[in-house]
Amino acid sequence: MHVGMLTGGGDCPGLNAVLRAVTLALTGDGATVTGIERGFLGLLTRSVQPLTRERVAGILAQGGTILGTHNRCDPFAFFGAGGADCSAQAMSYLRELGIDALVAIGGDGTMVIAQRFAELGLPVVGVPKTIDNDLALTDRTFGFDSAVAVVSESLDRLQTTASSHGRVMIVETMGRYAGWIALQGGMAGGADVILLPELPYDLQAVAERCLERESREGWSLVCIAEGAHQRDAGLTLRETIADSPDPLRLGGVGHVLQQQLQPLLSCEVRTTLLGHVQRGGTPTAFDRVLATRFGEMAAQLVKAGQFGRMVALQGDDCTSVPLVDVAGRTRTVPLDHPLLRTARSLGISLGQR
Amino acid sequence: MHVGMLTGGGDCPGLNAVLRAVTLALTGDGATVTGIERGFLGLLTRSVQPLTRERVAGILAQGGTILGTHNRCDPFAFFGAGGADCSAQAMSYLRELGIDALVAIGGDGTMVIAQRFAELGLPVVGVPKTIDNDLALTDRTFGFDSAVAVVSESLDRLQTTASSHGRVMIVETMGRYAGWIALQGGMAGGADVILLPELPYDLQAVAERCLERESREGWSLVCIAEGAHQRDAGLTLRETIADSPDPLRLGGVGHVLQQQLQPLLSCEVRTTLLGHVQRGGTPTAFDRVLATRFGEMAAQLVKAGQFGRMVALQGDDCTSVPLVDVAGRTRTVPLDHPLLRTARSLGISLGQR
Amino acid sequence: MHVGMLTGGGDCPGLNAVLRAVTLALTGDGATVTGIERGFLGLLTRSVQPLTRERVAGILAQGGTILGTHNRCDPFAFFGAGGADCSAQAMSYLRELGIDALVAIGGDGTMVIAQRFAELGLPVVGVPKTIDNDLALTDRTFGFDSAVAVVSESLDRLQTTASSHGRVMIVETMGRYAGWIALQGGMAGGADVILLPELPYDLQAVAERCLERESREGWSLVCIAEGAHQRDAGLTLRETIADSPDPLRLGGVGHVLQQQLQPLLSCEVRTTLLGHVQRGGTPTAFDRVLATRFGEMAAQLVKAGQFGRMVALQGDDCTSVPLVDVAGRTRTVPLDHPLLRTARSLGISLGQR
Amino acid sequence: MHVGMLTGGGDCPGLNAVLRAVTLALTGDGATVTGIERGFLGLLTRSVQPLTRERVAGILAQGGTILGTHNRCDPFAFFGAGGADCSAQAMSYLRELGIDALVAIGGDGTMVIAQRFAELGLPVVGVPKTIDNDLALTDRTFGFDSAVAVVSESLDRLQTTASSHGRVMIVETMGRYAGWIALQGGMAGGADVILLPELPYDLQAVAERCLERESREGWSLVCIAEGAHQRDAGLTLRETIADSPDPLRLGGVGHVLQQQLQPLLSCEVRTTLLGHVQRGGTPTAFDRVLATRFGEMAAQLVKAGQFGRMVALQGDDCTSVPLVDVAGRTRTVPLDHPLLRTARSLGISLGQR
Repeated sequence: MHVGMLTGGGDCPGLNAVLRAVTLALTGDGATVTGIERGFLGLLTRSVQPLTRERVAGILAQGGTILGTHNRCDPFAFFGAGGADCSAQAMSYLRELGIDALVAIGGDGTMVIAQRFAELGLPVVGVPKTIDNDLALTDRTFGFDSAVAVVSESLDRLQTTASSHGRVMIVETMGRYAGWIALQGGMAGGADVILLPELPYDLQAVAERCLERESREGWSLVCIAEGAHQRDAGLTLRETIADSPDPLRLGGVGHVLQQQLQPLLSCEVRTTLLGHVQRGGTPTAFDRVLATRFGEMAAQLVKAGQFGRMVALQGDDCTSVPLVDVAGRTRTVPLDHPLLRTARSLGISLGQR
Repeated sequence: MHVGMLTGGGDCPGLNAVLRAVTLALTGDGATVTGIERGFLGLLTRSVQPLTRERVAGILAQGGTILGTHNRCDPFAFFGAGGADCSAQAMSYLRELGIDALVAIGGDGTMVIAQRFAELGLPVVGVPKTIDNDLALTDRTFGFDSAVAVVSESLDRLQTTASSHGRVMIVETMGRYAGWIALQGGMAGGADVILLPELPYDLQAVAERCLERESREGWSLVCIAEGAHQRDAGLTLRETIADSPDPLRLGGVGHVLQQQLQPLLSCEVRTTLLGHVQRGGTPTAFDRVLATRFGEMAAQLVKAGQFGRMVALQGDDCTSVPLVDVAGRTRTVPLDHPLLRTARSLGISLGQR
Repeated sequence: MHVGMLTGGGDCPGLNAVLRAVTLALTGDGATVTGIERGFLGLLTRSVQPLTRERVAGILAQGGTILGTHNRCDPFAFFGAGGADCSAQAMSYLRELGIDALVAIGGDGTMVIAQRFAELGLPVVGVPKTIDNDLALTDRTFGFDSAVAVVSESLDRLQTTASSHGRVMIVETMGRYAGWIALQGGMAGGADVILLPELPYDLQAVAERCLERESREGWSLVCIAEGAHQRDAGLTLRETIADSPDPLRLGGVGHVLQQQLQPLLSCEVRTTLLGHVQRGGTPTAFDRVLATRFGEMAAQLVKAGQFGRMVALQGDDCTSVPLVDVAGRTRTVPLDHPLLRTARSLGISLGQR
Repeated sequence: MHVGMLTGGGDCPGLNAVLRAVTLALTGDGATVTGIERGFLGLLTRSVQPLTRERVAGILAQGGTILGTHNRCDPFAFFGAGGADCSAQAMSYLRELGIDALVAIGGDGTMVIAQRFAELGLPVVGVPKTIDNDLALTDRTFGFDSAVAVVSESLDRLQTTASSHGRVMIVETMGRYAGWIALQGGMAGGADVILLPELPYDLQAVAERCLERESREGWSLVCIAEGAHQRDAGLTLRETIADSPDPLRLGGVGHVLQQQLQPLLSCEVRTTLLGHVQRGGTPTAFDRVLATRFGEMAAQLVKAGQFGRMVALQGDDCTSVPLVDVAGRTRTVPLDHPLLRTARSLGISLGQR
């Protein structure tokens, strides 16, 4: 048996752990594994490399992906919406290589493309990857715990500056559509205010919370997801920024919030935009185990001939769901999620009156 | 309302996060919270301290417990089996303090004592704590993820020495009865052999795995739980050690395995006993969130008057179970647990032929 | 003997280690120590707290300063240039408290003020603090190693994204006038290009280095100090940014470089502005030892009555220099510093043709 | 020019950083570099590998050595004292390879062998490596800062258990002859007692310090170097242990101290033997810079034809000293070293009355 494997979308801690687990589990049974480089792009540029036991030795703890990845390559529309359909070319290359099945590791976009290849007759298994933890039908994705850990550690660091200087420190985290990273990272790092895309914030409510702490503790920590936006504003903050004609206007929503808050407070407000450090580096132990389980499960599905499915975690069970059910669905934070109650009970402001 | 709170048993990362969450959630509703020092011992030594919003500020990230703890104090048998029943004295002190309800954070032993106080009429809520993750009826306990992270990081460190010198490096982890820490820590750290209390090991099988790697990669990592033991041995390794008359004989099961393995291999074998570093230090972000959820849930139970129950995690739901169901039950690694299959698929030896 | 102590300027890992060392060394000899809150501001707001053995227990590993600090308070010009001279008021408060000597921990600004108080007759000892490592007459200051460690770890993280995606990742570090953090952090993190304030960069040289790596390795890491600027540009980048009328223009020099570089390269360029995480959090072991040595040396100077001096590190010797010699001098990276040769020998571009 | 390079003795964080710096600096000038595997052993087993720019990419942050190392191989006495002199065989292999010069990275033992090869006419440059920081004529060696960081972090972790349970926690560090790691690691981690090989300890003095803290704070941290020993004892603790006929007697001097102390104290005493985790894993930023400087300096010496010398750090200057001066000299902690005064001033017990 000859299995192809690729990683698509943004990089994420744990990708290499999946590559390693799939490779060890399949080659241990006598299969051959070939890595396709830079996501689906490698099918068009014909870039592959053999994945052997030796090649994957020592990559468990490495961040990123040894195969490389690509954010936007879709062989069905190359390059971008309205682009040429190069899927036949990709399928022909796969046949040429003698690939019997494909393991595609990626997020929503990768799963949609994988499903289209499945419809062309390619036996496909998907492995979910989204650092934002916002993929439907799986409770957790690897990389998320690592991102939360970076946010939490950064808040630990910033707390010392906040309290030493008596400041409001704002941290902007990843999360365009789903606030999981800001919510869990903020709770783990002791944030006083957490602002999510799912809950448009009221500026006065945020300011009041900071003022209350200003008078009592003298400082506050604010954790804001990049997709957060102000209630009743015509545009989201991200849209406001994207709209700006000024090429130097490169701050994020955290900087916008800083400018909104500063006039309402006496103490200084400062912002940290965590950016790419959230998705780089070695995965946490939790993510290493989860990614390893996902990879081994993908190998089981391949061995059992269960194609057209995506690995998923439900409760503590590693299982699988139909690929076709996943595509295009995002799992945002439900407004009745118990973690929101927990946050409110602790006195964390979610930017609501 | 006046709520008492104590931490019992071994210390564990996340205890302070629970204390903080309970205190914030209850005082936010107007309740008074009093901390009892050094577990149940404080009820006999009459040592308490007020737990206010100010007192718990900044303890989220601190390891250990600001209340102190005690491993073996049971007011129903003071001190030790056959000791005096001092429970009346404890109850009288609680009445004197005006305590309406008690939140007891601890492991199996603490839950048994809490249940006995409940039977005397004290409204009690339990919060499960065991670094070993071996408490019945809850899928996860806080502290476990932090311990796994320490094991994983140590294996990362030792891997560089193993490969530089061409050695077998043995790491002994916590886990007297349950092998969860060794299993997950070992998988996260890329161990080649993982030995659990639940699966008595075959020395020849371990040696064969190491020899195979000796000839190929030149080195191996072995992760052994402190409760692991050899198949068909009259005594467990721990019992062998405990039996020894020599007061200097202080190595652990890892050292015993080293002595068993060395004659069978050409390369050097070295052992690291991780010991207490596994349970100290700041909790991981995962454990901070879990402990915070547990604490807030305990406060909800108190507010709702749902006593005689222990907080539990089932899947991703924070819920509660009857205290009486928990006592004396240990959750070891089931022999058909999917993680064992995952380990075997990756070629990790579990010490079996 | 009654000794006052304060921390001035920006916060920095190791400040608490100094406070602890001074307090332990002086109270061990029977002295009383009083902490003045928020730098020199506390002398005007009359805010102090006793520093006892108990108060400083456990603060060695804490970032920031338990006394609080203030960036800009100068009692000789309150507030800001041209402000009122309130030094008499400060002196009178010190007399009232019965302070025999003052230990002032801070950077260049703090040392200048300390020297002016010394001229008014106050027995003063200075302890140098600058995260940028740019204070004259001392080889090293605490906090610097911690900042370098954060930069290095961030580059480790970003390297995985750079190589997975084939990108140029830019990291902007602290360092307005001196490039020590960018230079050492960049070297420790394996940066391919390091841009310092001391060496105005040639954009073409930077682009060429990135292009060369683009064709060979496919990615690059660029480490730029916030004070770096382009050769022959009328304004430094910081000035360009400060000059901008747009209130949302909050990116740093890294973002400016990104905009300059992107048109010259095929691969994507992304920027991370590390900001305040570089100065927060627990000090490295190196900084804890250095800060402890500085604090204990300050206590020795006080006990020996050697006032008007600043603690300094020369080679591996902890010694002292006249305060008057320090003021207003910055130690930038000399253009013949051996580390620059080292960087060049390794093929690191310093932005020069 | 064709340069050989090897790493000898125990592994150490920073070895790969040296290999990388030497390779980049030499190949950048057109030289060829060949790595000899497993220290001097590779000269006898004829095991080498080319060290190219590509081979050393990404190893800066890796612990250990990609060349492998060997603790005891001396070609002049193979194997061990009285063994055969195989140096002619080694020299002949070097000639066969066309090696013009050798860079030998290692500790005292490696430098002695390197010097003997120099005497046979081989152009040799040495790079000092000892995690213990005890090599003569250089102020610092790489790896030491990383080891101190591990000790410091472990003490941080153990402090939470010590204070939660009210215990004395003993940590045994590396350092057979020199106490630098215990001294600096202990100071950085806030140890209350630090015991060094250079200062035989008085058991009563140690116990008194612990009792004093038992009554006040309730707990203590003790940091003991593996070469520490009791005053007036016939044997050092290490000798006592080595002398024991019992094959299971594998604890270290920390465990012996535990047994000595426990009867003298009321609170529990526990021991952690850090072992190999101190020498594994990624180097600290400090060590990465130092190792890089050492490697680049070695390349400069080779290029300048300055052979028979060892790279050294004096103050902040990277320089070189004659190899012949180094051999057989150990730099222990001088009894008048200022750090000992600092420790005493802070109230740290060094085990003396």
